[in-house]
Parts: sequence; C-alpha cells; structure tokens
Amino acid sequence: MSDNKTIPYKIYLNENEIPSKWYNVRSDMKNKPAPLVNPGTGQPMGFDDLRPVFCDELIKQELDNDTPYFDIPQEIRDFYKMYRPSPLVRAYCLEEALGTPAKIYYKFEGNNTSGSHKLNSAIAQAYYAKKQGLRGITTETGAGQWGTALSMACAYLGLDLKVFMVKVSYEQKPFRREVMRTYGASVTPSPSMDTKIGKKINAEHPGTTGSLGCAISEAVEVATTNEGYRYVLGSVLNQVLLHQSIIGLETKAALDKYGIVPDMIIGCAGGGSNLGGLIAPFMGEKLRGEKDYRIIAVEPASCPSFTRGKYAYDFCDTGMVCPLAKMYTLGSNFIPSANHAGGLRYHGMSPILSQLYADGFMEARSVEQTSVFEAATQFARTEGILPAPESSHAIRAAIDEALLCKETGEEKTIVFGLTGTGYFDLVAYQKYNDGEMTDYIPTDEDLEKSLALLPNIG
Amino acid sequence: MSDNKTIPYKIYLNENEIPSKWYNVRSDMKNKPAPLVNPGTGQPMGFDDLRPVFCDELIKQELDNDTPYFDIPQEIRDFYKMYRPSPLVRAYCLEEALGTPAKIYYKFEGNNTSGSHKLNSAIAQAYYAKKQGLRGITTETGAGQWGTALSMACAYLGLDLKVFMVKVSYEQKPFRREVMRTYGASVTPSPSMDTKIGKKINAEHPGTTGSLGCAISEAVEVATTNEGYRYVLGSVLNQVLLHQSIIGLETKAALDKYGIVPDMIIGCAGGGSNLGGLIAPFMGEKLRGEKDYRIIAVEPASCPSFTRGKYAYDFCDTGMVCPLAKMYTLGSNFIPSANHAGGLRYHGMSPILSQLYADGFMEARSVEQTSVFEAATQFARTEGILPAPESSHAIRAAIDEALLCKETGEEKTIVFGLTGTGYFDLVAYQKYNDGEMTDYIPTDEDLEKSLALLPNIG
Repeated sequence: MSDNKTIPYKIYLNENEIPSKWYNVRSDMKNKPAPLVNPGTGQPMGFDDLRPVFCDELIKQELDNDTPYFDIPQEIRDFYKMYRPSPLVRAYCLEEALGTPAKIYYKFEGNNTSGSHKLNSAIAQAYYAKKQGLRGITTETGAGQWGTALSMACAYLGLDLKVFMVKVSYEQKPFRREVMRTYGASVTPSPSMDTKIGKKINAEHPGTTGSLGCAISEAVEVATTNEGYRYVLGSVLNQVLLHQSIIGLETKAALDKYGIVPDMIIGCAGGGSNLGGLIAPFMGEKLRGEKDYRIIAVEPASCPSFTRGKYAYDFCDTGMVCPLAKMYTLGSNFIPSANHAGGLRYHGMSPILSQLYADGFMEARSVEQTSVFEAATQFARTEGILPAPESSHAIRAAIDEALLCKETGEEKTIVFGLTGTGYFDLVAYQKYNDGEMTDYIPTDEDLEKSLALLPNIG
Repeated sequence: MSDNKTIPYKIYLNENEIPSKWYNVRSDMKNKPAPLVNPGTGQPMGFDDLRPVFCDELIKQELDNDTPYFDIPQEIRDFYKMYRPSPLVRAYCLEEALGTPAKIYYKFEGNNTSGSHKLNSAIAQAYYAKKQGLRGITTETGAGQWGTALSMACAYLGLDLKVFMVKVSYEQKPFRREVMRTYGASVTPSPSMDTKIGKKINAEHPGTTGSLGCAISEAVEVATTNEGYRYVLGSVLNQVLLHQSIIGLETKAALDKYGIVPDMIIGCAGGGSNLGGLIAPFMGEKLRGEKDYRIIAVEPASCPSFTRGKYAYDFCDTGMVCPLAKMYTLGSNFIPSANHAGGLRYHGMSPILSQLYADGFMEARSVEQTSVFEAATQFARTEGILPAPESSHAIRAAIDEALLCKETGEEKTIVFGLTGTGYFDLVAYQKYNDGEMTDYIPTDEDLEKSLALLPNIG
C-alpha cells in the first residue's frame, strides 16, 4: 500500500455535513408497509390507539407514510456530534488479503460506547419523550446494545429508564448490564416478578431464561401502568428506520464526495433497523427509478425470517399485548436454538423491509454462524476492528461477493454496514476459538410448529 | 448548545496530516535521561549489550538522545490510517455540566479494538521485528491493553506473538485474553511453569497471582532463549515515548488549526507512555524556552511513584534479569494493594519523564480511586464515552482544574489525554456502582520496605 491512494482509508464528513433531516423511504414506496392493527378488532391502529404506549411525536412519525423528510431537532444533532459523522472506511487491507479486484467499503457505526448504530434512534426516542414532559421510558434488551444506547441517551437528557433484559443475557452478560447501570438505568432480568405478564410467564414456564418477546411484554406493561412513562423499541418500527436513515444518508454523502457508485449494498438483518437505515436513500433512488443497486439482507440460518418465514400479520411480543404487524415472521414464539451466539434473534422483520422484499426490491440470504465467525476473525486480523457477531453476517456476505469478483475478474464496488463492535461478545468468540461453535438450522417441522400460531388476520 | 460554535465537537485532521515523523523530546533536554545500566557491572548498556533482548532498530531509537525527528516508515503510517488521526474532542457537554468557564479538550485514543493508545507503539515495535527477519516477539501484559494492541499489530504483519499475562488478570479478564487469541497470539498466565524464572517464582511463592515484574522476567527469558525472538515492552522505555509522540503531535496540529493555546496539559501516568507522548511537542517548546505550559502527571494514590517514590536506579522486573533504569520508583517488588482496580500499577516511571520531573518541568499529583470512578461516571454520562480507569485519573484532575476555574472565573484551556475505553473494566465499575469500592494509600512503612531493596548504583 502506498500514499498515492486517491480514496482515503476513512472518508469522514465534516460535522456540518451531518444530515439535518431524516429520510422517510415510505414516501417513495408505491406499496406502503401494512399498518399496525389491533389484535382484538383487526382494525388499523390510529394515533389515539397508540398513545398509551408510545410518545406522541414518535407515533406521528410511525404513521406518516408520505412526508419524505423530517427535520432532525438541533438537540439531537448536538448529541450526534459526540460520535458522528461515522467513518465510511475503504477496506484496503481486507481487499489485499482476499486478492480481490472488488472495492469494499464499510460504514462503521461502532465508534461509541453503546458499540452500535442503536444510539441513532435511542437519542431521538429519548428526546421526544423528554419533550413530551414524560418522567421516563421503558424498554427491553436482548444482547444489550439497545439498552446500552438508550441508557446513554437517557443519562444525557436526565430521563428515567427501566430496562427489561432477557434473563439469559442478564446472567451471561453482566458487563452489558453494568454499563447500563453506570449510565443510571435500572435493569431487571425478564421474565421478572414485577409485572403481571412476568409472573404469568414464570408460572407457566418455571425456570425460563426469557426471550425478547417476553421482555417486550413486560416493558409495555410497565409503561402503560405507570404515570409519565412510555415504551420505546430499538428496531422493527417505521420510526426506528426513519432515525437510522442517517446511516445511509451519511454513506451516500461520503460516496458522492468521491464519485463512487456502489454495485451492491449489504447489511445484516435482525429486526431491520440497521439495514433499513443503511439502504434508505439508495432504495429511494431505486424506487424512483433513478438508479439500480443490488440490496442484500443477510440473516442467521438459525433465525431465517426473510428466507424461510411467512409474510403475514403476527404478534410482536410473546405476551400478545402489542399491536400486530404484517411482516416476514417465524411465529411470535419462535426462539433460536440455544447454540445461536449472536443477536439477530427476533422472530419478525421490519414491515417496511418486509414490503420491499415482497415487492422484489431486495434480496435476502442466510448464513451459518461458524462461517460468520470465520469472516469476523479474518476481518479483525486484517482491518483491526473486532466486529459484533451481528455485523459479521454482513462481512460474510461481503467477503463472499468479493471472492466471486476474484473468480470473474469484476471490479465491483461493495458497500456494507459494520453495525458495531464485538467487545461484549467474547464468550462467543471464545467458543469459536476453542473449536466448540456449532451450527443449527431449524427443521421445517420447527418452523411449521411456530408458524401454526399466527393470528388469523390480514 | 447550538450550531454556531466556531470550534467543532471533534477536531479531525485529514489522513495526509498524520505526522510523518516521530519527535524525540530527548533532543531538547539539557539533562538527558540516565542510561540503562548493567546490573552486574553498573556500566551503561550499549547497542551490543541490548541486542539479545531488543530489536536492532529499536535499540538505536532507545539510545539516541540527539536526533530530534525519526521518519515513520510508510508501512506504519498505513497501519496508523486504519485508526488515526484520532479526534481531539471539545468537551462541550462536560463543561456545561460543570458550569465552568474553562475550555476542556481531550485527545481520544480509544477508537480502536485495543481500546487504547498502546497500538501506536505496538505496530512500530512489531514492524521493526518483522523487518529484522525475526519469527516472533514476546511480551508481558497486565490489564491487557498492551497485549491486545500487540496481538493486533502481529496479526497484521504475520508475526508470532507470545504474551505472558499476569495470572490474576488472566483469570479475571478472560475477555481480554480472548481478544488476543482471536488475533492469533498465544497467551500464558504468569508466573508459568514454562520458564526457569516462572518455576522459581512459583516455588518461592506458591499460589502467587503474579505481577507485571514477574511477567516481564518470563517474557525476556523466552525471547533470549528462543532463536528468532526478541522482547518488546509497552511503556517506560525511551523508544515507546518516541512512538507515542504521535499523540502529542496530532494534538498540537489540531489545536494550531484553530489557534488554541492550552494553559495546561494533563495525563495519567503509569509507566509514562501516554503522558510522555501527549506532552512531547509541548514539552519541546517549553524546554526550548519558546512557550510555557503547566504539565500535570496524575497517578493513583495507591501506586504513587512520582509523588512518593525515590529517583534512583532500580530493577525493571521482579526477576532482576533486565537492565536497571534510573527512575522514580517504589521498589521493584512493590505491588499495589489488592483493592486497586485500574492499571497504572507499575512500580517505576519512564526515565525521560523522571528526569523532566526532577528538573522541575512538570507537576505530579495523586488521586484516590473512588474519586477517579466518580469522575469517570460523570464523564460517561455527559460525554458519552465510558472511559478506562487509567484515563479517568486524568479526567479527575481535569474536572478539578475546571472547577477551580469556576471559583476563580478564569477561562483556562485544559487539554487532557483520554487514553482509552473501559469496556473491559466493568468489574471495577460494578464495584463502584455497588458502593463497594474502597481506597488504599500505602503507609510510609509499606514504601520504606519496598524501597529498601533498591540496588546500590548511580
């Protein structure tokens, strides 16, 4: 490598180039995402139906399928300046190690203490709660990235935060819990004995180690039964994808600076918050017929909602207290096999991405976790950054595409989302280092069983 | 806060502004640091004496008190581009929280997987070992930052690495160990049964949990008894401070861009690698009589080498296999009290900094760890970044100085080094969060006892 590279290793925007508006990809979708519906009546939920659960301003964002841009309030932009713009990195060292003619770029969202992109929506949601004069907010967290991000945002704004953390994570990831506590959040293992639904789940499943679906139910119950509290969610929802569009807007601005046009954009997909944000402006161009890009969602083979799920209305939580969403789903009681190490374990997928996928605007593929950690290790050793297991799904696909270019000799430009760092995922890395990591793909029978419980709506 | 701030939140240099030379502060010192001496003969160690232990090029850098600048090889600059330039951050949010008229800046070195500034010297030392055609290098690590940094550098260059990790850290920080393994390093708890000195220490102190001094002895033994290996060290040495001058050079370049002149520069001090690097160009100006700055070293009250140690020749390691260095020291068998949570636990101090301190060019103070974690928590909640306990010593002093400005109304400009992140230090944070953290200041008798073993030289 030499100094005469025309593209720097890291493309940084200036602070005043941080986008001043979020982009709402729904405004360019001909087929809008299906609305949230009331599980009792089967009717779409309106503003008033959602008010007991969500903050007012966030409901407006959730329901607005038409406004193309939303101003980012100055206070949120100030917070963004503490860790944004995030760098778009040219993976020179990885390209060299692979011997590929492909040009690989990644948008790195891990340079903040939450260790992921989740902070982009956390500060927005906390801000609107504060503006509404609320005392606090409640949420759930699994791997802990979302809970950490929200605790940082709430500490900054002086807002109370109650986090329900999936019990197995609470016990296995004490350090994540401790970061949240350092930022002043209260963290309760879920299912707890503090809520009706928690008691019920504990009674029905003694010794359960919990699930995201349970924790959501508990957080919603606490938000709706305590004065001055609302519930917030870190993925899946339209509002979250709106906030996360900042990832894609910055990525596009950085690429435009150097006249780079990507051939494909790759992101990992759990609930869809990172992928939806990363691809937003590119998808907009595609939807408007201005440009074409391959857009690839990568999910774990052990939790394959896009590639093996059903596009249907389903419950968002185990307790069935939340609205129903139409999405690619594996069934609300689907839980990935115990050997699954990373995040991306939610049973459903963002309604926006689900509609785009159903309409053929994007591809999806699933990858197995040992191959994901192989890619993660190769990436760490060449590019320096120890990636989150979630992000490493995108790395796997990017490497696979780059190796394909090596075979064909094509100089394709690949952009992927490096959503975060793996500093709190060393138990999984240890398993991989010790050769003890295994793969598990759910059988057709597994999926039939969990999909049998879909509600009969839509 | 508003958008009309003239100084951005983060001052980033461009990639082509990464310094092309390291600055050697010794060239401007009238009283040079005392040379390493042979413990047997009491004579200064020359190039040939040091060759069995260190790489040739690094010995030249170690012994050269006169050359003001050393070119940074292109390969090292390319590696630097993966994580540098590091941002100089204006702590607007902390200033507001403190209500101080002071202007606070910090140079943040934690945005890389090693989580600290150690990577700056790790890549340099690994590069020269590779260039010399060596098979590998050996080192010791305590808290694990240095070992992690070196494992990243060695993975990048394809060099073998054997790390001796202080046993208590090896057991209490399995995640640090796992990062090193992910980067391909072999990690052995010290004292081990793999070396003569390790066996001896284990026999004399059954059940010992080790110390940095022991681990150094083991690493040096392995380097000197295996063909194609040399030993490298992450702090204290002159060469390390030379490499770390990149921190100060970037800091100065960023300040100069906006015409900012600091009143004081604050850094935490263990072996001195960060502090020595951060202050280098500023100290150069001070030594040449061009400018004046207050320069403040901050050390733990539980390991107070500057403030309560003796300036004398001492052993660098417990096994007494290393050369002697003249430095502020607490005695080579000094081990901080078991309740000491962070790093900065080395018994000695960089000979360069020791000479500068003895000559009155800098101040030093010690702080107690509960007050350090209080500052760390306040910093995390306002500035977002969860700081390393080591770095938080500097935060404590910076906050104290800013609060003093609040009393006096002075608008002083404070620059401090934020050496790294605390993502692998959550056990300590947990203790603090649970109210279980305690302070311990060694008694005069403690210090008299450990200082009684100083060799009779110099």
